[in-house]
Amino acid sequence: MKADVILSDGAVVTMNEELEVFPQGVVVIKDGQIVAVGPVADLRGKYEAEQTIDCAGQVVMPGLINAHTHAPMSLLRGLADDLRLDVWLHGYMLPVEREFVNEEFCHYGTLLSCAEMIRSGVTCFADTYYFEDEVARAAQEAGMRAVCAETVMKLPTPDAASYDESLEYCRRFIAGWKGHELIVPAVSPHSPYTCTPDILRETARLAQEHDVSLIIHVAETEGEVEGTQQLYGCAPAFCLDDFGVLASKTLAVHCVYLTEEEMKLMGQRGVGVAHAPTSNLKLASGVAPVARMLDLGLNVGIGTDGPASNNDQDMFEEMRLAALLAKGITGDPKAVPARIALSMATIGGARALHLDHITGSIEVGKQADLAVVDLDVLHVTPKFDLSADNIYSRLVYAAKSADVRHVLVNGRLLMRDRELLTVDVEMIMAEAQRIADRVNAFMMRREESLLDKLVAIGGLEWKETFEVQVKGRVEDEAAVKEGLAHPHISAVWRPSVRDQYDTYLLFADESQGYIRHREDYLVKEEGEIRESIYTLTLTGPSSEQEFDNSVVLSRSRFTSEADRTLRFYCEYFEPDSVKEVHKHRQRWHIRYKGVHFAINLDKLTKPAYEGAFLEIKSRTWSKKDAHHKALLIGELLDVFSVDRKSLVKRDYVHF
Amino acid sequence: MKADVILSDGAVVTMNEELEVFPQGVVVIKDGQIVAVGPVADLRGKYEAEQTIDCAGQVVMPGLINAHTHAPMSLLRGLADDLRLDVWLHGYMLPVEREFVNEEFCHYGTLLSCAEMIRSGVTCFADTYYFEDEVARAAQEAGMRAVCAETVMKLPTPDAASYDESLEYCRRFIAGWKGHELIVPAVSPHSPYTCTPDILRETARLAQEHDVSLIIHVAETEGEVEGTQQLYGCAPAFCLDDFGVLASKTLAVHCVYLTEEEMKLMGQRGVGVAHAPTSNLKLASGVAPVARMLDLGLNVGIGTDGPASNNDQDMFEEMRLAALLAKGITGDPKAVPARIALSMATIGGARALHLDHITGSIEVGKQADLAVVDLDVLHVTPKFDLSADNIYSRLVYAAKSADVRHVLVNGRLLMRDRELLTVDVEMIMAEAQRIADRVNAFMMRREESLLDKLVAIGGLEWKETFEVQVKGRVEDEAAVKEGLAHPHISAVWRPSVRDQYDTYLLFADESQGYIRHREDYLVKEEGEIRESIYTLTLTGPSSEQEFDNSVVLSRSRFTSEADRTLRFYCEYFEPDSVKEVHKHRQRWHIRYKGVHFAINLDKLTKPAYEGAFLEIKSRTWSKKDAHHKALLIGELLDVFSVDRKSLVKRDYVHF
Repeated sequence: MKADVILSDGAVVTMNEELEVFPQGVVVIKDGQIVAVGPVADLRGKYEAEQTIDCAGQVVMPGLINAHTHAPMSLLRGLADDLRLDVWLHGYMLPVEREFVNEEFCHYGTLLSCAEMIRSGVTCFADTYYFEDEVARAAQEAGMRAVCAETVMKLPTPDAASYDESLEYCRRFIAGWKGHELIVPAVSPHSPYTCTPDILRETARLAQEHDVSLIIHVAETEGEVEGTQQLYGCAPAFCLDDFGVLASKTLAVHCVYLTEEEMKLMGQRGVGVAHAPTSNLKLASGVAPVARMLDLGLNVGIGTDGPASNNDQDMFEEMRLAALLAKGITGDPKAVPARIALSMATIGGARALHLDHITGSIEVGKQADLAVVDLDVLHVTPKFDLSADNIYSRLVYAAKSADVRHVLVNGRLLMRDRELLTVDVEMIMAEAQRIADRVNAFMMRREESLLDKLVAIGGLEWKETFEVQVKGRVEDEAAVKEGLAHPHISAVWRPSVRDQYDTYLLFADESQGYIRHREDYLVKEEGEIRESIYTLTLTGPSSEQEFDNSVVLSRSRFTSEADRTLRFYCEYFEPDSVKEVHKHRQRWHIRYKGVHFAINLDKLTKPAYEGAFLEIKSRTWSKKDAHHKALLIGELLDVFSVDRKSLVKRDYVHF
Repeated sequence: MKADVILSDGAVVTMNEELEVFPQGVVVIKDGQIVAVGPVADLRGKYEAEQTIDCAGQVVMPGLINAHTHAPMSLLRGLADDLRLDVWLHGYMLPVEREFVNEEFCHYGTLLSCAEMIRSGVTCFADTYYFEDEVARAAQEAGMRAVCAETVMKLPTPDAASYDESLEYCRRFIAGWKGHELIVPAVSPHSPYTCTPDILRETARLAQEHDVSLIIHVAETEGEVEGTQQLYGCAPAFCLDDFGVLASKTLAVHCVYLTEEEMKLMGQRGVGVAHAPTSNLKLASGVAPVARMLDLGLNVGIGTDGPASNNDQDMFEEMRLAALLAKGITGDPKAVPARIALSMATIGGARALHLDHITGSIEVGKQADLAVVDLDVLHVTPKFDLSADNIYSRLVYAAKSADVRHVLVNGRLLMRDRELLTVDVEMIMAEAQRIADRVNAFMMRREESLLDKLVAIGGLEWKETFEVQVKGRVEDEAAVKEGLAHPHISAVWRPSVRDQYDTYLLFADESQGYIRHREDYLVKEEGEIRESIYTLTLTGPSSEQEFDNSVVLSRSRFTSEADRTLRFYCEYFEPDSVKEVHKHRQRWHIRYKGVHFAINLDKLTKPAYEGAFLEIKSRTWSKKDAHHKALLIGELLDVFSVDRKSLVKRDYVHF
């Protein structure tokens, strides 16, 4: 019989139900499909083909399936590593994505990833990102099989201002690619905690209506699971089930913090799992209970996650790590043996992606998605054939991605003798670097100034401030309160009482100014309902001018609500030193001879000081105005019985 | 000035104290040493050399240091994986080592490992094995720097029948290599639990006397730490300190289960640590607290461990895993950043090996042990230069061993453009396979028969048995005891009472026989001091011959003391099924009409049977004798009032 391609004389590792291995085998391909597989002895002379590839000394195996990646993010590989997830995400990934992710970015990023994946024996990948139309186009161009899932979430994304737009994009995208021989269009509600119930319901409906896959991040971190629990009142898998998400051809990514009940539920619903061990370790998320999921019969594949958090898409490293990690974590050296690890990376991945009728094993009738690996190399020497497991051990524990010689998808050669046939490597490396250089320059500018770093994380308000002010030690608090009863003083509004916990982030380069994170813990209403207000303030270097009795201070200030933790800001701004100032403040807004003053009576608790400090402040706009106010401040010092010798010019942070 | 080799225009990652990086740098080598390092701009025209290697687009870094391996074990790579440590060790490694490890084995095994290590950028390794003289010779031949430590332990080793011989070997070995430019001879008391106090004291004395290094496995597994605690009454590091072991130039390998106090003690003693993350995961030992050790200022290097438990010696994979694992385990994504991981794999390893005055960083005066890595490759694209950490991130998270282009040790090129210059790869691969084929054949023969598998783990006694025997149900125990009072019956020795817990390992191929593991829990002396005796018995297929009233059974039996756990034997023999039989047995040895009989009165508790069974047995040697004894057994059945209809022919295992 006439065929297109014959792979002859290699050891054929089929990954079929019986895990058959033909030590000297043949795979025959026609019209993209596997039409025969078996021992050389059985098939010799039965087929002839235009192209016969001699695989002696090599292993012919199903192409690897990367069950989770964000392919375009290869362009951000190595941009920022060894950071906490929120700093990495909010400080680096999201600002850069907002600025740079567009069709071109997704196209070249995907091509770069495809090239890398083909070179490590990957024939199929599951992607979730933005502009999935471009991801699909690039995968098609590279000749790879891919499940491309467009991301939908409640936040604005690079390709949609709102989730309605994302859903609309999905509909068009699915219609455009449904039935394609390589590309499986899909939808990806990002995760339970970044979606609303509406988004979860509508994406599930969309997936079922068009019978396409649905990919969702589930239980990646402990905090996220707690958040979901608080938001929906149940564990992630159960809430997803309530919204109909598990009724689709669903792939759940990460699954680090699933309970036994959730795993069982996912098993019942036929949900696939993508295990991403490198990413889970690198971002310190944890380790997924893979051995247990396999015991429960779940279909578990292995994914690299995006190359910005890995930092590669090498499935040989990933499957090796999956095998090693399961043993170290369970304490059972028999957990996830090599055979199972290879199975997860091939047929298990295909099952998880709901594509096992097409790919994942070498069986007649399946598409010819294959990798040929040379094991006749130094680091896989010598070979033992004591048990059926030896060959899996060689492939998983000793072979490397660089040992992959040929790769075929749908019977088409994508790599021959390590030469990529569908991607122009030089071109794509140059384009990738061109885009990366722009990202680099953008980030360099940002890193140069605290202000830009602050702007990058959003929500900023600018205030240039000119103030007349004085500060003095007061022994006697009672005298201050008496002063407030002075006939020329009237209260403008209700006094407030607060505890202020300030953390100053200080920098060696003082011209940058400094950043103050303030927790303002104040009595909101009478009856002692207290509330904290968090602000972040960048204070530029101040320029001071002295008057009798007071000082005019001019300085620029940028404030924003501090909606992240202090820890985040410390890791993000990387100050050279940090100083804490805690004080108890009573504040009065008064009018004295027609002029508005703020009066603060502060007690410092950290660093602790005896007595109290009185601050008198007023905004000013002109020199004349400042001079007039300075005179009034002199009078007020008398009113409040403040000794001139007790005046202090330093700011609390410099105490 | 005239030099030997100049590496020009690469990014030079020095790993010196200041972690200087010269983005376009030069390294100048003369007489094996680094004589200049710095930016191209500073050094241009100052040196000329016979050989200048253009490293543009590449990184010049200190050669990697593999802080722990057993180099010759590359010959056993992939022989047996995914097994529990004891099965792997006692079932596979030790029997094969007993049979095969000799000078030739160690020579070729080390050459194979050196070739593999050079190809992954390793310039120096610390080895502990047997025949270290051959390991040293092979390392020298390959041109690598190596600390070669001869193993000493209380058990016989392939190169010594007792530890005295090992110590004698060490003395000769050290004398032969002391002062060599590449080889550092050393001694390796294997571990606290495989050594006696004498061995620990004497090896420590030897190391100090000759001022050589001492390498020891410490706290690799939880069980081992418990064992040490029981044996010596203190934690491993403290007991080693008591024996003077930490006062040497000591390298402690693994250190998975060290307490905070032990880490501090090791820090005080200047003990280096070799972290072996792959091996610790693969054998399910656990994860060493590396981040904590680094915090405490310990010198921690990274090692692959022997290639039989890894299964490679790829330090790029190892340092990547060290960086990833520390984050996943501590929950801190900032733990062991790329910079620190690379540092551990270079200068940290040199410090741990007490060789940092010679190697580990690119500094003037150190030996030129260097690796040149090509980062201008697909999977390391694109490049960012936002922070000083980006280059470490590329090297640790994205680069692979296959990206190493050139390797130099002592200024000598060992690999140029990936071509090995000191090892004949084809020859060594062929020799390795030749030896492996012999190992394979030996193991195949062993796997073929239960007997050989049993022989392989040692301590076996053979007994061919012919017995006349009968077994019958007895309703009335009292009748049996009355029977024993019969005037023709005399007791030969004291009756015994025991609970027997038998586990039968059964095999589909019944011609192999079956294995019985027995716990014989018996009253040792009066006053109820009970003791368990564990035996392992291989019972061959029996040939039976029936007589009136009884059966002659002939069968071969091999018994040995069962000095390992039942779990071990199950994993080792891999039976097709397992069956448990528990019984309470009273046994009398009697003489009846001059013939010796054993009388067992058994009550089966698992599977549970009502009533009891009486067994009457006697050894026999001839047909005539058997016939005579069968007649006597008929009489005894009457004596014990056993109904002929209640006779049972099946063995308990077949109930």
